[in-house]
Amino acid sequence: MTRERKVYMNGKFIKESDAKISIFDSALMFGDMVFEMTRSFNKKHFKLKEHIERLFTGLKILRYDLSITKEELYDICIETARQNEPAFEKDDEHRLMIDVSRGVLGIYEDIDGIHNGPNIIVADFPLKWTVKGMSKLYKSGINNVVTSQRVIPSHLMDPKIKNRSRLFYLMANIEASLFKGENNWALMLDPDGFIAEGSGDNFFIIKDGVLISPEGRNMLRGITRQYIMEELAPRLNIPVKEKNIELFDAYEADEAFICATPFCMIPVTSINSVKIGNGKPGELFKSLIKEWSSMVGIDIIKQVENWNKDSSKKSTKNKVTPYKFK
Amino acid sequence: MTRERKVYMNGKFIKESDAKISIFDSALMFGDMVFEMTRSFNKKHFKLKEHIERLFTGLKILRYDLSITKEELYDICIETARQNEPAFEKDDEHRLMIDVSRGVLGIYEDIDGIHNGPNIIVADFPLKWTVKGMSKLYKSGINNVVTSQRVIPSHLMDPKIKNRSRLFYLMANIEASLFKGENNWALMLDPDGFIAEGSGDNFFIIKDGVLISPEGRNMLRGITRQYIMEELAPRLNIPVKEKNIELFDAYEADEAFICATPFCMIPVTSINSVKIGNGKPGELFKSLIKEWSSMVGIDIIKQVENWNKDSSKKSTKNKVTPYKFK
Amino acid sequence: MTRERKVYMNGKFIKESDAKISIFDSALMFGDMVFEMTRSFNKKHFKLKEHIERLFTGLKILRYDLSITKEELYDICIETARQNEPAFEKDDEHRLMIDVSRGVLGIYEDIDGIHNGPNIIVADFPLKWTVKGMSKLYKSGINNVVTSQRVIPSHLMDPKIKNRSRLFYLMANIEASLFKGENNWALMLDPDGFIAEGSGDNFFIIKDGVLISPEGRNMLRGITRQYIMEELAPRLNIPVKEKNIELFDAYEADEAFICATPFCMIPVTSINSVKIGNGKPGELFKSLIKEWSSMVGIDIIKQVENWNKDSSKKSTKNKVTPYKFK
Amino acid sequence: MTRERKVYMNGKFIKESDAKISIFDSALMFGDMVFEMTRSFNKKHFKLKEHIERLFTGLKILRYDLSITKEELYDICIETARQNEPAFEKDDEHRLMIDVSRGVLGIYEDIDGIHNGPNIIVADFPLKWTVKGMSKLYKSGINNVVTSQRVIPSHLMDPKIKNRSRLFYLMANIEASLFKGENNWALMLDPDGFIAEGSGDNFFIIKDGVLISPEGRNMLRGITRQYIMEELAPRLNIPVKEKNIELFDAYEADEAFICATPFCMIPVTSINSVKIGNGKPGELFKSLIKEWSSMVGIDIIKQVENWNKDSSKKSTKNKVTPYKFK
Amino acid sequence: MTRERKVYMNGKFIKESDAKISIFDSALMFGDMVFEMTRSFNKKHFKLKEHIERLFTGLKILRYDLSITKEELYDICIETARQNEPAFEKDDEHRLMIDVSRGVLGIYEDIDGIHNGPNIIVADFPLKWTVKGMSKLYKSGINNVVTSQRVIPSHLMDPKIKNRSRLFYLMANIEASLFKGENNWALMLDPDGFIAEGSGDNFFIIKDGVLISPEGRNMLRGITRQYIMEELAPRLNIPVKEKNIELFDAYEADEAFICATPFCMIPVTSINSVKIGNGKPGELFKSLIKEWSSMVGIDIIKQVENWNKDSSKKSTKNKVTPYKFK
Amino acid sequence: MTRERKVYMNGKFIKESDAKISIFDSALMFGDMVFEMTRSFNKKHFKLKEHIERLFTGLKILRYDLSITKEELYDICIETARQNEPAFEKDDEHRLMIDVSRGVLGIYEDIDGIHNGPNIIVADFPLKWTVKGMSKLYKSGINNVVTSQRVIPSHLMDPKIKNRSRLFYLMANIEASLFKGENNWALMLDPDGFIAEGSGDNFFIIKDGVLISPEGRNMLRGITRQYIMEELAPRLNIPVKEKNIELFDAYEADEAFICATPFCMIPVTSINSVKIGNGKPGELFKSLIKEWSSMVGIDIIKQVENWNKDSSKKSTKNKVTPYKFK
Repeated sequence: MTRERKVYMNGKFIKESDAKISIFDSALMFGDMVFEMTRSFNKKHFKLKEHIERLFTGLKILRYDLSITKEELYDICIETARQNEPAFEKDDEHRLMIDVSRGVLGIYEDIDGIHNGPNIIVADFPLKWTVKGMSKLYKSGINNVVTSQRVIPSHLMDPKIKNRSRLFYLMANIEASLFKGENNWALMLDPDGFIAEGSGDNFFIIKDGVLISPEGRNMLRGITRQYIMEELAPRLNIPVKEKNIELFDAYEADEAFICATPFCMIPVTSINSVKIGNGKPGELFKSLIKEWSSMVGIDIIKQVENWNKDSSKKSTKNKVTPYKFK
Repeated sequence: MTRERKVYMNGKFIKESDAKISIFDSALMFGDMVFEMTRSFNKKHFKLKEHIERLFTGLKILRYDLSITKEELYDICIETARQNEPAFEKDDEHRLMIDVSRGVLGIYEDIDGIHNGPNIIVADFPLKWTVKGMSKLYKSGINNVVTSQRVIPSHLMDPKIKNRSRLFYLMANIEASLFKGENNWALMLDPDGFIAEGSGDNFFIIKDGVLISPEGRNMLRGITRQYIMEELAPRLNIPVKEKNIELFDAYEADEAFICATPFCMIPVTSINSVKIGNGKPGELFKSLIKEWSSMVGIDIIKQVENWNKDSSKKSTKNKVTPYKFK
Repeated sequence: MTRERKVYMNGKFIKESDAKISIFDSALMFGDMVFEMTRSFNKKHFKLKEHIERLFTGLKILRYDLSITKEELYDICIETARQNEPAFEKDDEHRLMIDVSRGVLGIYEDIDGIHNGPNIIVADFPLKWTVKGMSKLYKSGINNVVTSQRVIPSHLMDPKIKNRSRLFYLMANIEASLFKGENNWALMLDPDGFIAEGSGDNFFIIKDGVLISPEGRNMLRGITRQYIMEELAPRLNIPVKEKNIELFDAYEADEAFICATPFCMIPVTSINSVKIGNGKPGELFKSLIKEWSSMVGIDIIKQVENWNKDSSKKSTKNKVTPYKFK
Repeated sequence: MTRERKVYMNGKFIKESDAKISIFDSALMFGDMVFEMTRSFNKKHFKLKEHIERLFTGLKILRYDLSITKEELYDICIETARQNEPAFEKDDEHRLMIDVSRGVLGIYEDIDGIHNGPNIIVADFPLKWTVKGMSKLYKSGINNVVTSQRVIPSHLMDPKIKNRSRLFYLMANIEASLFKGENNWALMLDPDGFIAEGSGDNFFIIKDGVLISPEGRNMLRGITRQYIMEELAPRLNIPVKEKNIELFDAYEADEAFICATPFCMIPVTSINSVKIGNGKPGELFKSLIKEWSSMVGIDIIKQVENWNKDSSKKSTKNKVTPYKFK
Repeated sequence: MTRERKVYMNGKFIKESDAKISIFDSALMFGDMVFEMTRSFNKKHFKLKEHIERLFTGLKILRYDLSITKEELYDICIETARQNEPAFEKDDEHRLMIDVSRGVLGIYEDIDGIHNGPNIIVADFPLKWTVKGMSKLYKSGINNVVTSQRVIPSHLMDPKIKNRSRLFYLMANIEASLFKGENNWALMLDPDGFIAEGSGDNFFIIKDGVLISPEGRNMLRGITRQYIMEELAPRLNIPVKEKNIELFDAYEADEAFICATPFCMIPVTSINSVKIGNGKPGELFKSLIKEWSSMVGIDIIKQVENWNKDSSKKSTKNKVTPYKFK
Repeated sequence: MTRERKVYMNGKFIKESDAKISIFDSALMFGDMVFEMTRSFNKKHFKLKEHIERLFTGLKILRYDLSITKEELYDICIETARQNEPAFEKDDEHRLMIDVSRGVLGIYEDIDGIHNGPNIIVADFPLKWTVKGMSKLYKSGINNVVTSQRVIPSHLMDPKIKNRSRLFYLMANIEASLFKGENNWALMLDPDGFIAEGSGDNFFIIKDGVLISPEGRNMLRGITRQYIMEELAPRLNIPVKEKNIELFDAYEADEAFICATPFCMIPVTSINSVKIGNGKPGELFKSLIKEWSSMVGIDIIKQVENWNKDSSKKSTKNKVTPYKFK
């Protein structure tokens, strides 16, 4: 068994750099790809079933004609991680990327040697690539900048289908990079002016002890978001509410944070450079991430810090570039 | 010199089926790819400079950092066609597809053997693949169906940057496929209810001798559209106007047609099964395509009909599947 | 006592075909008519008071100056049904149509022999005319097609006033008739892209055991809808929620159905040809209609099936044409 | 030949008060009726062909299945006026009302004695009924009040199809009646805040010698409006422009007026009680109506004044009530 | 100690007519002033802390750089009232007006003798000035007129920051003054057509025993409103709900009222001249204001009536002009 | 004659620092003030009549009841400048600020010593205060940053009435100050996503030799803008067009610039840090400002540079702070 990572693609395990999609594929012609990205805690896959469930909802709405079942895809994921495990460090976590594309367009189906039909891909790489550089953010928090780029309303292209036509996320990131200071992350409003989501994360505020999320409308309904609302907060008896959040509400909030699969939760300590609460990670934020850590048997923050230390200690090939485009 | 088609990719000519993009590329992560598709008439490239010009405007707005110039890209296109010419039939036309992607995201740059930096790709395949199946449409016209899928307004994601985050085009196509009858092509309104564009074509009406196009706002401003408005119509002394077009205006029009690079122009003889004009290709449509044919020295309609005949005569490997997703 | 149906009109009972409105009436000049349509179960009027209540709210907002009271109108309805009963079959149900118009416009008041002042009309015909053709739908369910026709937002013309300016309902029906397949019923979004209503029916989804209706905003707040939410579901301990429903939510739902006075409830087994749940009438749907049947002492589905059988057995004058425009 | 007015209805001439539509007709169920109202000058029909042309466009879009041609309808109109002429005073003008309805809904087609299929109706009454009460307005002008009632945007229900689902016109009229002072006519904005139209008239401003109309979008494109823009103004060398008009533009205008078939043109001397220009009928208004008068050989204002005098001199049966609902 | 009222301004107490702001101040250049207006009951300040809290939220979002703390401002308010008390009648209540401006713009800072930096102002005048003229409204109620002027949506300029850029309030007032009848107060819709607020008051309806307020979005979230919802209604076991309210809901309501700091609560007995409920102050309105009176030890209505009587008895210098612009 | 500047206020000339408005004035209660700011060239007032004309349009729409005429106000302006001239340097230009407020609200009219009725104020200060710091911008150009703050649409509060309810301008300025780099000026979109205006300046692009301005809708229609479009550009035979401008159009433009009374014209050399044209002041910009200079007999750029040099040479009391809030 080799120590080189491999990618599952249409029934085979191939070299990571060979995991590629034809330029004639609908994925590249139309951004027509449905995907999921998961993580493990202590090498245990987290909410993998929920991710696959969501993937299949997207495939159904987009009328993909897939021959494998949810269960088979689940097994593929497990097997991919198993095959890659030898290539992972002991303290690594698995980050699976599941990509499904519709396949090459009809007029290209006869190209010599081209793959016809959908592509099913499962890649697996160390989670630290993504999060190493974020270790300090758990303490400093981020500054959310409200971009002039707004999200696309769901009735025009639904972000709840986790798809690849997301150029506007990237444009929000570019806009965020124009702001002064550090740790600026884009926060996007929806066309009604309500806070929608970040470019790859969900947003929460806490006000008077209540955890409040924007209504699950113009956003990807994150599985991390759902976990916090339906499992984590209830465990701590924190009441949870979904409602339209205006920027004013966020400015008035006691705490704010974002969440996403790779980093779990990161505090928002200011928005447009205006302090939220006292400008530091809030008490409920700390309780929530502590509870989460205890649930999965990993000190989530410490783990990221350790990965960060490691990367400074020894020169490694896979150096972590800044979290440019999440 | 071999008779196999090849694709230019980052300085090399490779096998067509090897023209692929890494799953870690921004193109597949965000639909972050800018592209152009051109055609030739009598093997002469048509408006190639204009296509490259438009490509570079998109690259600039999206802050791609490309090392080659417009002129160099032009030369690459010419060379790609030259290299592929032996693999083309005598009566074939070149269809170039120019794809530029930003490259793999920062955190994946150290994957073994992965290509860093932008991808520049020029593919070249016979135009007949795309248009063969449309030969009858020049006479029958198409039926435009107004889909409930509307275009994304340009201030949220600008279609004038020809990009790959176009899942909503595909969803409009799916919706069009649900309608009774044949030759149904999607026609999308913008959020104000004005006619915007088809999922890959521009729309025109003719009323009282005036050629009218929707304002160039929520659409790709097609190079074919521009050619018709700025060169073809003036040659025939047909006045041209850009204005907001409502469905009512289209129903009241004398003629309507769509245009796009591969098929030039096709009449719209009904919308939602309501006849436009007398339900047949209009006189000005015929004049325009005739003038165009004479300009490029090719009977445009005849050429497509010939390709179609050919394909019925002899069994060919590259059979043309219906123009499913343009 | 004759066996011919009669229509109450301004104090008299007249021949059905004589129930007419002057072309100079505000009803025909402006679509300025408020109305209700009710039904009976086992010849017992259902929610007649609620219908009349809603009618009078509309009259008040539209500033009709009516000389009769709610109670008097109620009595007129009862009397109309009583007078018509002899003309009904034993297994028939009464379908009352109550129409109130403002009367002829001022400038026409002096036309010879013209009726001045409001018109109050109560017609009564067998419910089977409306529902006979729907018997199979209780089992097959309908396919809701989302039309490009959207509802008019309530702040421009309020559907909660049950009025006759509803040309857009009919246009949605026309659009629905253009789709492939059978049993296509129009489902309209509101201008924000939320599901509003059908062209004469209210829409529900069921998700995780909860009955969910769109917020009662851009719709007629159906009395059937209210009955299901406030009486039927509570009897079965089904929790009920009003919220904005997106198409995504409907695709993800376990069940969906529509409701309206004549047919009570009909399952929605697909939307835009995408299966909802397992593509069959759902369990909660079945429980609800069963409970309803037991409440009114009629097997609702069986009754419609019987009417349908009857109509095939013997040739009847009042043949039922397809539920073209409800 | 009798001196009683008659109405053409489906091939017959009937008593005016018998011109009625069944309550089961789509016209009364859905406001589904297309219509035109014309006038004569010196007993000569004005723009009758244009009216019929517009009617047929509406019928086509609404998919009415009519068996008569435009020419036949034209002849019916002529014949109706001819038959009614004996019942008109010498100084009367003909006001034709052409109503077309789709007919009774399918489920009512078998009602005993009911008319199946479309209704085609042409009524003819003296124009003075409508305009007598307006004689003073040519001098005083009207005060346009901007109502909170806005027009329905054309992509939801197109006012360019002259139809009867116009309850919102009537609601605007009710709102206008709540304002202090006299001669208040409703002026409606469209959802973007641009001036659209009155509830039965088109709006114009004049600024720096240019005649400006709102873009022909969220309005009935009046035939009178078209006559003024395309014939009358050009005859006087007044340049004409269609553009979005804001309330600010109207306040800043030199003149403003409304137009409609029955009264031709009436000055708007104030809006929301703010004077337009010097608060009197403007010079260009006067020139336009003078030119019009000379074109049709009738002093338009004088004619209305005469009708008004007549009605005060002798007690007449057809007394004119205030132009309540146009 | 003099009996003349004084205004606190930047550390000093000055003559009331000297309380002025430089024309070069940002307050006058941009409407850039944050403010609060409070009242006392029995000379006891009501919710003063809450007012100051809200003021500081506004200052924070607008990035005012203020050197005093909330506590210091509180003390200034107390001191201002104390100093003014001798100039008040025994039965007077204090009406504090707290104004904070950013100060003169940078380019004017060097003007001779000009005050640099923020202005902090606390004025104090008898509440009766504001409310004396309203005494009859507690019994008659007001007529809310829905203006064509709509509120500015909060994402464009947030009314929750109590600021001075409120010209649109005044325009709504002007519009209300154009309606027939008396006691017309403007009621503004938001751009979605929901009821937002009056031009200086919050709106409530009561339906089936539930107190319903518009969602706290496009409005100033009044401290009076909050008091009613969070303290008063709960004391009477009246359930409270925030939801989008349409005009239809208001027409259908059992009761409606407005609230604001100076007058507490006033019934809305009609909207656009359509009676709400029975057109008289409702029972729950009466209970609420009675409870409030008992809470603060003042008969709120009686107090206003007494002030009104006083003003008719003796000629006073400070005559009360109609509540023109609140 | 003293060398101290004075301000005209309601008939008197007073000390500059005494030019103040009561906190009880509608101007400070509602941002209810109409104003103009002008400039001179070579001490000659520029377009003063046009400014006064615009002021009076605003006053009329806002129903100010002013007792002076346009001509009298003009004379006051002239006299104010005359009186202040001795206090100006030889190379100074006059910057008049004309402020009109409605006066104190009714309930405050009896305050001892308070001014009743409108305030009419004309201040006059050296233009260099405003523009001194901008001298380098004529060469470097500015970077327009598109803020998430959008303009308020004109139908909610019309910017064409030059009023003081402009807090959103200031919020855009704050947002612009958060961006990296220098010379960032806010550029605001309207709610449809079109470019509207800066926070105190109008925006132009030049494309293919045509000068293009946004439609004069959601903006102050600047008098400078009008001068450029109607006088300056025609003198140079530059065609001028008003149309909706999208950000894409601006990115594609050959040149862009802003204009406003104090600085005339300043090039926009980048937007969101993307170069416009070659990133330098454009040729047509240079021609226009050169022509303007020659028209007014002043080298506009040189004049500002001289003022700037002066201010560095000698320490002056009126030091110029950065153009923080225009």
